[in-house]
Amino acid sequence: MRGRDPAELVERAAGGDRAALARLLTLVERGGDGARQVARLAHQRAGGAYTIGVTGAPGAGKSTLTHALVRHLRQDGRDRHEVGVLAVDPSSPFTGGAILGDRVRMTGHAADDGVFIRSMASRGHLGGLALATRDAVRVLDAAGFGLVVVETVGVGQVEVAIAGAADTTVVVVSPGWGDAVQASKAGLLEIADVLVVNKADLGGAEAAVRDLENVLQLVGPSPGRWRPPVVVTSAPAGTGVAELWQAVTGHRAALEATGELDARRRQRLATELREVVLRRLEDQAATAAGLGSFDALVDEIVAGRLDPWSAADVLLTFTQPAAGERSGPPPPG
Amino acid sequence: MRGRDPAELVERAAGGDRAALARLLTLVERGGDGARQVARLAHQRAGGAYTIGVTGAPGAGKSTLTHALVRHLRQDGRDRHEVGVLAVDPSSPFTGGAILGDRVRMTGHAADDGVFIRSMASRGHLGGLALATRDAVRVLDAAGFGLVVVETVGVGQVEVAIAGAADTTVVVVSPGWGDAVQASKAGLLEIADVLVVNKADLGGAEAAVRDLENVLQLVGPSPGRWRPPVVVTSAPAGTGVAELWQAVTGHRAALEATGELDARRRQRLATELREVVLRRLEDQAATAAGLGSFDALVDEIVAGRLDPWSAADVLLTFTQPAAGERSGPPPPG
Repeated sequence: MRGRDPAELVERAAGGDRAALARLLTLVERGGDGARQVARLAHQRAGGAYTIGVTGAPGAGKSTLTHALVRHLRQDGRDRHEVGVLAVDPSSPFTGGAILGDRVRMTGHAADDGVFIRSMASRGHLGGLALATRDAVRVLDAAGFGLVVVETVGVGQVEVAIAGAADTTVVVVSPGWGDAVQASKAGLLEIADVLVVNKADLGGAEAAVRDLENVLQLVGPSPGRWRPPVVVTSAPAGTGVAELWQAVTGHRAALEATGELDARRRQRLATELREVVLRRLEDQAATAAGLGSFDALVDEIVAGRLDPWSAADVLLTFTQPAAGERSGPPPPG
Repeated sequence: MRGRDPAELVERAAGGDRAALARLLTLVERGGDGARQVARLAHQRAGGAYTIGVTGAPGAGKSTLTHALVRHLRQDGRDRHEVGVLAVDPSSPFTGGAILGDRVRMTGHAADDGVFIRSMASRGHLGGLALATRDAVRVLDAAGFGLVVVETVGVGQVEVAIAGAADTTVVVVSPGWGDAVQASKAGLLEIADVLVVNKADLGGAEAAVRDLENVLQLVGPSPGRWRPPVVVTSAPAGTGVAELWQAVTGHRAALEATGELDARRRQRLATELREVVLRRLEDQAATAAGLGSFDALVDEIVAGRLDPWSAADVLLTFTQPAAGERSGPPPPG
C-alpha cells in the first residue's frame, strides 16, 4: 500500500525521491481519477517552474540540442539549474509509456541527480496528451525543478500547441530554405520566441538565418512585440548553446519586465480550465446511459434534430461529476 | 402579443415577411433565452445556405466589393440568387444595433426583395459576436436565402474567425506590398479560399498579385490542398466581379467534389457546440450564488487554491441549466 498513495508520493517526490517522481508521472500518463488527484496535489505545491518548449521538424536535432542545453545549464557554475525534461512523442500514442530512444540519447546525465528526463506518451485521444503534459510539468515543478524543458516534434496542431504553451518556445530548424518555409507553414514561426538554426556544421547556416529573417519579415510579429532572435548552434559540439541560453533568458527578462509572464500563465490556466471542462463533459457524455458520445450529439446537430444550444443542455444535464470524483480525500489504499 | 412569438416569426420570415426576419435578427443580437429559442427554431428549418465570408483590412473596399458582388448575382439571369448580407462591425460592440453607414452604402438594393442586408453588432463580450453571427446566418437560411455573405473587418482574432467560418472565405487586399504582408500577419492568408486585389483602378495591381503569390509560396497551403486563386477587381465599376464569382463557385465545386464541404460544416458545428457549452457554463458561473465568475475561478487556480480539475468540478456542479431554459415550448407571450 505504501508508495501508492498520491499524497505521500508527492511528498516524497518533493523531498527528492526520484522513484516517487517517476511513479507520479506514470499516474499522470494513465489519465483518469488517479491523474486528476496527482494534478490537484501537485498544483498546490507547484512553485512556478520556468518552462521552455523546444520544437521543430523531425530531424532538426531537437533531442541533441536539448541534451546540449541541459549539459550547459548543469555546468554553468554561477547559475546551476535543476532541470526536468519531458520528451513528448505523439507519433507513438499507443505505446503507453516511455520511448527508450530518447532516454538512451540522454544517458550522459544518468549520474546527475539535478536532471530528470522522461518520455511522455499518451494512450487514447490527442487532447489527453496536452493535458497529461501540463500535469507532468506540474509534477516536476512540485518536485522542485526550477526549469522544465518540454520537447515535442513540431508536426500537428496538438504538438505545436503543447510546445507553444511554454513560457519560452524555441523553434529549431536545420540549414536550408525548405526548413524555414516548412516551419512557417507548420505554424512554428508564430509560436517561436527564439529561433535556432541547428546543425551549423553542415554548412549553409548563414543562408538559413537570412531565409528565416526574410520569412519573419513577412509573417513575424508586429512592431513593438518581441522579435525572436535567430541563434546558430551545432549541438553535438555545444557550439552556440551559451548564446541559445542567453536568448532564452533575454526573452524571460522581457516577459518579466512587462508583466507578460504572469498574463501568459493566467491565460494558459484559463485555457486549460476550458479544456478540462470540455474533456470531462465529452468523457462523461460518452459513458452516460442512453446518451451516446459527443460525436453522436454532433450528428444530431448536423441532421437538424438538435441545435447547438439544446445539445449543450443535453451535455450539461447528464454529465454531473460523480461524487467520488470530487475533491474529497483519496480512496483508502 | 402577435408577432413576438419566435415560432410564429420564423414561420412568417420563411414565408417572405421581411419585418419578421428583421425582428428575429434583433432577438439574435440581444442574446439570452430569446436568442436561443430563435436559434433552435431556425436550425430546424435551415436548408444549408452557402455562406461566403468577405474580410480584409479596413479600407480595402470590402463593403463596395460585397455590394458589387450582390449586384452581379442579382443581375445574373441564368442563376439568380436570393442573397442575405450580414455586415459585422465589432468595432462598435456597444451600439447594440445596426450601423447606418453600411446600410446607406448598400441602398442600391433597397428595392430588391431578393436581397436582405443587415449590420450586426453585439453588446457584451466578444464571444457573443461569433455566436450571434452564426445564429443570424441560421435565421437567413431558414428564411430561404440560399446565399449568405458575412462581411467582417479582418482585424482581431474573433473577427478573423467569424470570416473563416464560412464555406468560402474571400480575403480582400488593396494594391501595395504592405497590404499583402499585413494580411499575412493578421492570419488572413491562412483562412483565404479566394484572394482579391481590389481597387485595381489605383494602379499597382500586378505588383500586388505578384506579392501575394510570393507570400503564398511561403505560407500557403501544402501541395494537394486548394490553392487560393488571386482575382483582380475594381469594385465601383464592377470590373473582375464575374471572375470573383467564378473563383467562389470553383472553390465550392472543389469542396463538394471531395466531400470536404460536409466535413467542414460538421467540424464547425462541433466547434460551435463546444463554444456554446463553455459560454453557458461561464454565464451561469457568473450568476450562480456564492460562486463568482469564471475569471474568479481562474484567479483561484492562479493562486494555487484550486487546480483546473477541481475548478471544472465547481463549474459543472453549480451550473445546471435552469428548467425554464430547456427545450420546452416558448413562454406564453
